[in-house]
Amino acid sequence: MSTSSDTSYFSSSFTLGILGGGQLGKMLLYETRKWDITTKVMDPSKDAPCRLACNEFIHGDLMDHQTVYKFGKNVDVLTIEIENVNIDALEQLEEEGVRVYPTPRELRLIQNKITQKLFYVDHGIPTADFSRFAYTSEIQESISNGGLHLPIVWKSAQFGYDGQGVKIIREISDLKGLPNVECLAEELIPFKTELAVIVARNAGGSGVNYPVVEMEFHPEANQVEYVLCPARIDDKIAKKAIKTALKVSEELQHVGLLAVEMFLTQEDEVLVNEVAPRPHNSGHYSIEASYTNQFEQHLRCILGLPLGNTESKVAGVMVNLVGAEGHEGEVYYENIEQILDLRGVTPHIYGKSLTRPFRKMGHVTIVNEDMQEARKIAAEVKQTINVISKKKV
Amino acid sequence: MSTSSDTSYFSSSFTLGILGGGQLGKMLLYETRKWDITTKVMDPSKDAPCRLACNEFIHGDLMDHQTVYKFGKNVDVLTIEIENVNIDALEQLEEEGVRVYPTPRELRLIQNKITQKLFYVDHGIPTADFSRFAYTSEIQESISNGGLHLPIVWKSAQFGYDGQGVKIIREISDLKGLPNVECLAEELIPFKTELAVIVARNAGGSGVNYPVVEMEFHPEANQVEYVLCPARIDDKIAKKAIKTALKVSEELQHVGLLAVEMFLTQEDEVLVNEVAPRPHNSGHYSIEASYTNQFEQHLRCILGLPLGNTESKVAGVMVNLVGAEGHEGEVYYENIEQILDLRGVTPHIYGKSLTRPFRKMGHVTIVNEDMQEARKIAAEVKQTINVISKKKV
Repeated sequence: MSTSSDTSYFSSSFTLGILGGGQLGKMLLYETRKWDITTKVMDPSKDAPCRLACNEFIHGDLMDHQTVYKFGKNVDVLTIEIENVNIDALEQLEEEGVRVYPTPRELRLIQNKITQKLFYVDHGIPTADFSRFAYTSEIQESISNGGLHLPIVWKSAQFGYDGQGVKIIREISDLKGLPNVECLAEELIPFKTELAVIVARNAGGSGVNYPVVEMEFHPEANQVEYVLCPARIDDKIAKKAIKTALKVSEELQHVGLLAVEMFLTQEDEVLVNEVAPRPHNSGHYSIEASYTNQFEQHLRCILGLPLGNTESKVAGVMVNLVGAEGHEGEVYYENIEQILDLRGVTPHIYGKSLTRPFRKMGHVTIVNEDMQEARKIAAEVKQTINVISKKKV
Repeated sequence: MSTSSDTSYFSSSFTLGILGGGQLGKMLLYETRKWDITTKVMDPSKDAPCRLACNEFIHGDLMDHQTVYKFGKNVDVLTIEIENVNIDALEQLEEEGVRVYPTPRELRLIQNKITQKLFYVDHGIPTADFSRFAYTSEIQESISNGGLHLPIVWKSAQFGYDGQGVKIIREISDLKGLPNVECLAEELIPFKTELAVIVARNAGGSGVNYPVVEMEFHPEANQVEYVLCPARIDDKIAKKAIKTALKVSEELQHVGLLAVEMFLTQEDEVLVNEVAPRPHNSGHYSIEASYTNQFEQHLRCILGLPLGNTESKVAGVMVNLVGAEGHEGEVYYENIEQILDLRGVTPHIYGKSLTRPFRKMGHVTIVNEDMQEARKIAAEVKQTINVISKKKV
């Protein structure tokens, strides 16, 4: 741990700590390597994608107070690549002088979907109507007595990630099997499309936004299938989405990257769905398409460096590579050679050795001067590559 | 080591070996991480920039036959990031079935500047006139008896890298202190500018070229100061340079990347100066500017994957970051924060802890839609950042 304020971040003893060692951390490490910033990463899995390219990899429980505290005491700046970490430990570290970005205060607010929704309401940020429940079992009661009308979106208050903890309830029987936890029932928005804006903000309060992206979800897995940048929407809507995202970021006094996911309603209203205070799937296109990719930008924010240009060089489309249904075991990227033959195609392989249905195994970015052409090639990519397993485990 | 031809390169047991662990290897590792390709790297320095981000780092002498042989026996494909490696070992490995790219045959030809020059002559590739000498001491004799006229460029036959092994001789006294080795005396070309073309070629013989870049050298250190892509030359000259580079690549039956450096003479002739059979300083701009960067392209070539698009998204200028004169010791990148505030600027820090005068410590890429603007910002970068040491070692 460096103590001198004079220390540079580059080829120095300054140390950045990253809680979580998944694909987001892995892509962040490309940037710490590019700038030769010393890193320590902690993850509960020994095989985490971040096990390489950091200066030190520590195998540990992100939810354990002492483990997180001990890890954080040995770094100068601490960041996260996953929200589900022990926040009490982060608060203690912050009190003891470690710079923690995003702040524990903000993480605590976001980590719980109910306090997140209440925050939007309190700050006049448009969001879908909702009711909160102490237990999932109370939802059925509320429907029975006419207090709630189907369809709704059920969301557990805690630990939602990658579509887990979220379910569309069209009939009462859809509630079966859900954990009986604190949750909310949200109005199901028959949206035209989903949008996202990534805001980058530093501790001084300077903020910049990336262009609005358009997201297309897989209907069953509730995972993003395509992300398009720029979104195919008119300027007026884009401005509204950007204004909303900047307001969320400012009200949160966010430091780092904040991905703001929004619904575009049939009436062209923009409603905030949820936020992620870190590099985000909706910003992966930026590695190939943007002047400053989201991972470098996150570093710039949390290190207090000048913010980078968020404009795009070219149009970008991102396709998630998720494990095919019916395949579980050692991963094989079928037809990856074929997609490498398509124009402007870059696959990213996260380095998970085992695939399972809908597991995020990688993504593919397609860049092109022309968005229509990029979107066309993206569809070809999606039809061609398969994340399968030849051997069952 | 995998044996099945069915094995994919991605998240598999396939292993790529890289001889040399410097900055070129480090940037190659960004791409192997992106595709989760297993790598082993060997370098004589324990602190080599590649010590991180490879799957296995081996500390060993690249010129020692047994060390290189033993390293190569444990990989599926072997490549280099520096030419000065034990070629006998590579030949043995190739005979025993390891795929070695570039081939030992080609490396042997290139490693010696005399055989390299003779190759150009034999294949009708334009190059500056030269005379060969068994010892540097014979040059003085040749000048005395009128066989050779100053100025000349002295080049040692072996082990030239980054300006070492090359010296402009304007007066006989300039020969003082040069090693008395096999060498050549080359006509000093009063060139308009230096150009380079990177050709990517796979084992099947398919080849693609990157655009022509323009290089500007530091007058004393003989190191590149700016690389501009595209070169500010007319189409006719660009076509000539590309044609020449493709011819060199084809005649060499090169596999991998080949950087062909050329002089543009006052008469608009294109003369081949030298080649490098690997990713090259003149292609660093491609990380930010090209659809396919040179490191990914090298992987595509040596793994037999389809070649990527070599076009640029935007104009790029690259500035080398070399150690300032008068500074030797722990490196400090003075004013790096200021250059991060300029538009489209990306510094790359190689991760060498100690600086010394003219040592290559990193580079900065400036991308912009407009080349003139990029070049202007590049000059500002060059004037602003200093690679110094605060503490002497």
